[in-house]
Amino acid sequence: MNIPTCEHIKIARNLCGITVTLNRPQVRNAINGAMLNELLGVCTWISTQQDIRALVLQGADGHFCAGGDIADMLAAAQAYESGDQSAFYELNLAYGKLLLTMARLPCTTISLLEGSVMGGGLGLAAVSDICLASETALLAMPEATLGLPPAQIAAFVAARIGNAKARQMALTAKKLTAQEALDTGLVDQLVQDQVHLQQALATQLRAINHCSPAALKTTKSLLIQQSPFSEANDANCEQMLARAAQAFSDAVTQGDGPEGTQAFMQKRRPKWIRDEEVTA
Amino acid sequence: MNIPTCEHIKIARNLCGITVTLNRPQVRNAINGAMLNELLGVCTWISTQQDIRALVLQGADGHFCAGGDIADMLAAAQAYESGDQSAFYELNLAYGKLLLTMARLPCTTISLLEGSVMGGGLGLAAVSDICLASETALLAMPEATLGLPPAQIAAFVAARIGNAKARQMALTAKKLTAQEALDTGLVDQLVQDQVHLQQALATQLRAINHCSPAALKTTKSLLIQQSPFSEANDANCEQMLARAAQAFSDAVTQGDGPEGTQAFMQKRRPKWIRDEEVTA
Amino acid sequence: MNIPTCEHIKIARNLCGITVTLNRPQVRNAINGAMLNELLGVCTWISTQQDIRALVLQGADGHFCAGGDIADMLAAAQAYESGDQSAFYELNLAYGKLLLTMARLPCTTISLLEGSVMGGGLGLAAVSDICLASETALLAMPEATLGLPPAQIAAFVAARIGNAKARQMALTAKKLTAQEALDTGLVDQLVQDQVHLQQALATQLRAINHCSPAALKTTKSLLIQQSPFSEANDANCEQMLARAAQAFSDAVTQGDGPEGTQAFMQKRRPKWIRDEEVTA
Repeated sequence: MNIPTCEHIKIARNLCGITVTLNRPQVRNAINGAMLNELLGVCTWISTQQDIRALVLQGADGHFCAGGDIADMLAAAQAYESGDQSAFYELNLAYGKLLLTMARLPCTTISLLEGSVMGGGLGLAAVSDICLASETALLAMPEATLGLPPAQIAAFVAARIGNAKARQMALTAKKLTAQEALDTGLVDQLVQDQVHLQQALATQLRAINHCSPAALKTTKSLLIQQSPFSEANDANCEQMLARAAQAFSDAVTQGDGPEGTQAFMQKRRPKWIRDEEVTA
Repeated sequence: MNIPTCEHIKIARNLCGITVTLNRPQVRNAINGAMLNELLGVCTWISTQQDIRALVLQGADGHFCAGGDIADMLAAAQAYESGDQSAFYELNLAYGKLLLTMARLPCTTISLLEGSVMGGGLGLAAVSDICLASETALLAMPEATLGLPPAQIAAFVAARIGNAKARQMALTAKKLTAQEALDTGLVDQLVQDQVHLQQALATQLRAINHCSPAALKTTKSLLIQQSPFSEANDANCEQMLARAAQAFSDAVTQGDGPEGTQAFMQKRRPKWIRDEEVTA
Repeated sequence: MNIPTCEHIKIARNLCGITVTLNRPQVRNAINGAMLNELLGVCTWISTQQDIRALVLQGADGHFCAGGDIADMLAAAQAYESGDQSAFYELNLAYGKLLLTMARLPCTTISLLEGSVMGGGLGLAAVSDICLASETALLAMPEATLGLPPAQIAAFVAARIGNAKARQMALTAKKLTAQEALDTGLVDQLVQDQVHLQQALATQLRAINHCSPAALKTTKSLLIQQSPFSEANDANCEQMLARAAQAFSDAVTQGDGPEGTQAFMQKRRPKWIRDEEVTA
């Protein structure tokens, strides 16, 4: 089985496996449906390879990933208008499935965080075993400022940094600097810039190069089984994804989503923002 | 439904919801049964309000909360002497129910920690989404020095900072400075004094003000469902509260509680303290 | 019931209980079957004592514990060659049972980490309530570099520092300095040297000396019940131990274990290490 051919991501060999570059720099590597399917294809391919010890994930041109692509949201909106009531549900569910698949990958996953690490991009970071960041990285779940919940992302962030820290990010939409993300446990190593990021990665890959592929696979499997995302816990995982997708769909169609997205398009404040002078 | 009228707490509107001030400064805002019921009343009220995005919890006069009121303990002792065998059980269980209710609140909860944050006061901090502290804060579970377990509190502290760190606090009764509590993850932001505490709070509230009420509610609900205190896990929660209440009641009536409280009253060392010279 | 008489560990009274010194300095206190049984005997003895508030664990001559003894591995290999197909399974399972027993001890457990804290030694640290370390401590799960999974250890490390941080250690075999282990949450207090380590221990014991034995026992029990290693979760624990033992046995006999151990014996690189120049 060959490495899948892809349009929206670049794939290269590295010392211990492959490096995937999210490659839509014109939208800060935002994930659209096509990129999502390509990523899923890579995950499937990895699971067939005995000697892949590491998957490195990075973004092109100084940003990791800005989240979901707004174009897909607009397409889902059109589909919904045309009567496809599950358009937003399916869009969101697919993203949750990608995160769950990545959390269960049999190899070590390393993300290189720079620039925008937002929404869905933060989700990719949260399911990575190792997050290396440069000082340019900014990490956030900004969804609530648009009237939406970070539906699929929140649970994966909570699994990595604990429920309380995940609440703080999700319930204030705070942008964490790379240093703050290091303190919170979302980032595992912080370096100065892109050059040092590649050096830090090389150090990690050299360490992994000394570890046996079979032992790493077994170890990862044992640790996945102790996580909330184990196969044994699959019924709960399915329910979690479905619940999140429904919450997202409801928010977009019935909640504050319409006001939030309209305000964003019209470059005005959404109605829920109160005048600070009244009570602050 | 109006904001409940209260005697032991003060309630004021803030930019995103309400600020509750524990207001029994003569006992460092220790929680008695009346205050507990008022807090539960506020929680019930909040759950009926669509636009409450934040509950801020603080204490009057430089202390957050010194724990349970000793007067309630004495009253329970009298009731127990008079044949009410469940007096301590019910007293303790009510406190656990308050913590569980607060852990499940649909809005963001922010506690401002100053001075005494002890026992039950630490429990309130542990179930808060965000803990801001000034340098005067001292956090501890001192119960074991009185011959009692921090029965309802320990599990909520463990959920916030992990089982090992919770054990360290509960099994040594160590008083953590605000800096130590920051390092442990019980405090999320540490500032110099009361003025900076209010400024840090204002920053948090301004961030929450940009988030949609409906999206925050949904997000909080999704994250509660990933926590040990989810409604889906209610049977286990009930059992946890009942077990803790029984452990507390047993300790007060049969264990080292009588010796501990008598020693405290008589300002002498309890009998279990060994002379250090013998073995240190 | 008297303190058990032991050959491979030394036992002494301390202010709040006993201090156990792993005493095989010629192999950096590596655990063999005899030492393991002695440790289990001590755990059994502790559970019969009402007044043991603390178990202190340390290693002789500047090292905590280098892991499992290679001599036991060689003996298991001989037994396996002679037809005992469960030799490695049983060897590994026994170690998991020790860790589970220690995680459930009714007293506070304090480990003093110095020098080598490797593999099985790291497991002992992970199940300790409090880890004090001096600057000489080096902590790692190096198993994968030998073609083996850190089978029983990984889950206990994950329970202490979270699944992601445990993955980072287990999947890169990284040696953590004491400072890095402090940052990761494996070490709770870091001091300069052995003198300060004993002082830090004395401070902890003095604090525990003020806590009632009965209250500590109850508190520990309540917190164990909130952990993955509770008696209520025993079926899962058994399964976890059995799965790990099987994974270990398979790796030693069929996986990369043979190549890893042969390479180690022959002081050559195992075959899985790629030449860095090819792809780095």
